[in-house]
Amino acid sequence: MNRSKDHASDQSITSASRSAGSASGSDFLQLDIADAPVGGLSDWLALRLRLAISDGRLPVGSTLPATRVLAAELRVSRGVVTEAYQRLIEDGHAAGRGRSGTVVVAAPITAPVAAPVPARVVAPAAPPASAPGPGDPFASAPGLDVFDALRAAPARINLSPGVPDLAAFPRTAWLRAERSVLHDLQPSDLGYGDPRGAPALRLAVANWLARNRGIRVDPGEVIIVAGVAQALTLLAQVLQHDGISAVAVEDPGSLGACQHLRSWGLTTPPVPVDSEGLRVDELRASGAQAVLLTPAHQFPTGAVLGGVRRRELMRWAGEGGLIIEDDYDAEHRYDRPPVAALRSMLAEQVCYAGSVSKLLAPALRVGWLLAPPKYQDALVDAKRFADLGNAVLPQLVLARLMESGEMERHLRFIRRRHRRRRDAMIAAIGTHLPGAVVHGAAAGLHLMITFEADAEADAGGAPGGEGGSAGFSDADLAAEALTRGVKVQPLSWHSQRPNRPGLVLGYAASTPTDIAEGVAILGKALRAAG
Amino acid sequence: MNRSKDHASDQSITSASRSAGSASGSDFLQLDIADAPVGGLSDWLALRLRLAISDGRLPVGSTLPATRVLAAELRVSRGVVTEAYQRLIEDGHAAGRGRSGTVVVAAPITAPVAAPVPARVVAPAAPPASAPGPGDPFASAPGLDVFDALRAAPARINLSPGVPDLAAFPRTAWLRAERSVLHDLQPSDLGYGDPRGAPALRLAVANWLARNRGIRVDPGEVIIVAGVAQALTLLAQVLQHDGISAVAVEDPGSLGACQHLRSWGLTTPPVPVDSEGLRVDELRASGAQAVLLTPAHQFPTGAVLGGVRRRELMRWAGEGGLIIEDDYDAEHRYDRPPVAALRSMLAEQVCYAGSVSKLLAPALRVGWLLAPPKYQDALVDAKRFADLGNAVLPQLVLARLMESGEMERHLRFIRRRHRRRRDAMIAAIGTHLPGAVVHGAAAGLHLMITFEADAEADAGGAPGGEGGSAGFSDADLAAEALTRGVKVQPLSWHSQRPNRPGLVLGYAASTPTDIAEGVAILGKALRAAG
Repeated sequence: MNRSKDHASDQSITSASRSAGSASGSDFLQLDIADAPVGGLSDWLALRLRLAISDGRLPVGSTLPATRVLAAELRVSRGVVTEAYQRLIEDGHAAGRGRSGTVVVAAPITAPVAAPVPARVVAPAAPPASAPGPGDPFASAPGLDVFDALRAAPARINLSPGVPDLAAFPRTAWLRAERSVLHDLQPSDLGYGDPRGAPALRLAVANWLARNRGIRVDPGEVIIVAGVAQALTLLAQVLQHDGISAVAVEDPGSLGACQHLRSWGLTTPPVPVDSEGLRVDELRASGAQAVLLTPAHQFPTGAVLGGVRRRELMRWAGEGGLIIEDDYDAEHRYDRPPVAALRSMLAEQVCYAGSVSKLLAPALRVGWLLAPPKYQDALVDAKRFADLGNAVLPQLVLARLMESGEMERHLRFIRRRHRRRRDAMIAAIGTHLPGAVVHGAAAGLHLMITFEADAEADAGGAPGGEGGSAGFSDADLAAEALTRGVKVQPLSWHSQRPNRPGLVLGYAASTPTDIAEGVAILGKALRAAG
Repeated sequence: MNRSKDHASDQSITSASRSAGSASGSDFLQLDIADAPVGGLSDWLALRLRLAISDGRLPVGSTLPATRVLAAELRVSRGVVTEAYQRLIEDGHAAGRGRSGTVVVAAPITAPVAAPVPARVVAPAAPPASAPGPGDPFASAPGLDVFDALRAAPARINLSPGVPDLAAFPRTAWLRAERSVLHDLQPSDLGYGDPRGAPALRLAVANWLARNRGIRVDPGEVIIVAGVAQALTLLAQVLQHDGISAVAVEDPGSLGACQHLRSWGLTTPPVPVDSEGLRVDELRASGAQAVLLTPAHQFPTGAVLGGVRRRELMRWAGEGGLIIEDDYDAEHRYDRPPVAALRSMLAEQVCYAGSVSKLLAPALRVGWLLAPPKYQDALVDAKRFADLGNAVLPQLVLARLMESGEMERHLRFIRRRHRRRRDAMIAAIGTHLPGAVVHGAAAGLHLMITFEADAEADAGGAPGGEGGSAGFSDADLAAEALTRGVKVQPLSWHSQRPNRPGLVLGYAASTPTDIAEGVAILGKALRAAG
């Protein structure tokens, strides 16, 4: 699949350099065959490639141009390129990936093309082991900092859900877009800006939602926020001001979202979820005026809100109910057609929130919020008095990636990787957790497994046990797994009412090998914990 | 002064390329003299420079290498380089700045080295004229969106305060640091992170505060926030939870800060400011438990908190008062030694907030908050449930700029430019506003002028008039100036109690020419409005 990526980048490079009037499509590597000593072509090429790796033009994780392509660019024999790549592989800078091409795996020990910085800063993030954290995150009921604690806990294999394949982050495309943004930027763009966000990104998001989510929205209605988390922050303030003190949530549902809403003073009455998604009849029974749900891929069960339920929910909203739609990973589908966003059907009663956290990376902290007209102004004020608006540079870079097609290209690329990883996880579960039932594998970045009574019997657990209760505690299982170097989240974390024991397993950010090994360890942990 | 910048960049380029083992220090322009046709050196060099400008390696606003330096790099005669620069000046891509060197002023009309994007996105920010905004920002008492309205109002010359020289933003250094950050980044850095911010930036900020503000703080205590505005947001929540419902503010003082605190439910009792800064006796009299102030350079008067006042304030804090120190432009000094931060004297009672808004650009939305130990955990929770933490990439880029010395270099650079602009404004005021009294010119990015009774008489205003009242309204003056194409802020905006009429004039973001013209227009507007 990297081959297609090669072509993509080659093409953009060639067209770009052509438009810039240059002769050679390998400009991006600053390669000029005229520099090469006669007879030493491979040595020269290997050296230039090492320089390109060391100064970031070829970041770790990127794929080298196809030998055929680069040989043609440089008008040298393909053998010269193959030999140069072999040198890089031999000295550990690159690794052969068969039909996937040759991938950069390590940078030479030379200063990057940047002002020298103290070594301590060259490794920005503290290693998990040394990061602070209140020890065992499973020791007691999850507290406000439980996710910090889980993040800080050292583990060799991380199967906790919520992130895409971060190793695939398009560093080269990002840097290219940033360069062009910095080039086009007006000084006034660097001042205080519109609290709703940069016009360019609001336009790009409106176009993205039209192409990918069937939502028609005027860019003027898009509010750029610091991820779905901040969208909930702003909504919580505005809804309370509107007299809404409770937001019903799915059960099981996201613990993080619940904690977030509660931290802003809202109650979160639980509404059961089954294989068709939210039980709308139970929502009615709860009397709540608003509900937060994940219709495209329910977290954590992975259920898709069924057609009948959608109609019931629309009727509930038509009678005055307010829907908060968290469209957190709707773009990730494998075995089923896309599901239209609820927002596309009833804009007046649906607050829609999405982000790039599952498309690119959570660390970008960029998302978008579409509000019903009645809340638009109040939400803009809330955003203004939260932080005066998102940072502008990442907004403009994202706008370029979205409008240039890079984002869809990246999405297609990681979807293929995610699917292989999901398949690897399902296979491993069949082998090592025969008693586990798999849920919600048709989409998303994670799947959920539950242990039914008979399965627990197999596993030595007590029949009918409940997630957080005696007999068989999935928190104990997660704790046991962590001691064996595998990080997972127990289903009980995400359940307000007692539930079957289970685990929420993320597969998107781990290699098939790590997934297989991690699930095998889970099997051992289950037998030990049972 | 650009000469010194030349040297800086030349040096870093040379050392970088040397460390990367390259032969030519002009690698950063991808210049290889071997490419040049015999006899056409100047044409070839001009072409390569246009390409470098078009793909962002030489951004608009940057200075071309000194002819002497580049000629030596390329081993060509200085005349070749001079002639090439002349071509760029003739076709409008560059402009000669005398001893300041040759500056890039416009990019060629060729696609930048990035996937092509729709033209509408290539100009990200909507032009002020077309931006939405509730018309005349001076028509009534300033509302919550008054700064959006002022920003949206079209004006040829913008003398509103609050921003540094944005044209001087170090685009090249930023891009270089971003490349190296993307190169060194671990995939896990792109996931959800520590709500307190990236360890690398918290370390860099701790070092920065030690070097520049006399503050000793452990990096673990630094909370990275989205600018001082978000610091106030988090503090407002935590203080109210601690039973504090009023935060005294300076009067005159920042309207924006007042609006921010009030939007979070706090009252903002005004405390008078005189030439020695905050009247601590009045603060005591107000009975407030907390105060927000700008001790290093009071906004808008520019007064420095005097030694006696500092001791009085410390005594007040020692008796339980809480100080919120907004250190908003302490790094900008011209005619006086630095003033130590209050935080450096009494960490237990001082919440310290700073940002890069006045050092680099407000649009970066990055700042830092140091809390007293008793509030640390609550503020971290508040940050978590605000947005889960700042975006990581800009944090890591800033960390590099701070630790590499780029930031101090940039600060020295803009300080020289700011001083010239301040001098130009003071000279213009002497010529065109002879009745105006200038305040707070020894530091910062703006100055304040007031119109005393006799001055108003000169200006045709009623004696003893008050800022927002009959006779002579500075809001009317600002409105009149805006109709004449000059944007300023009236002192009355920043005054809770009646005050002398005056204006707050930013000089940092305008050229001396624009400043002189703008102040001349203010003189005409004053006579018209009087």
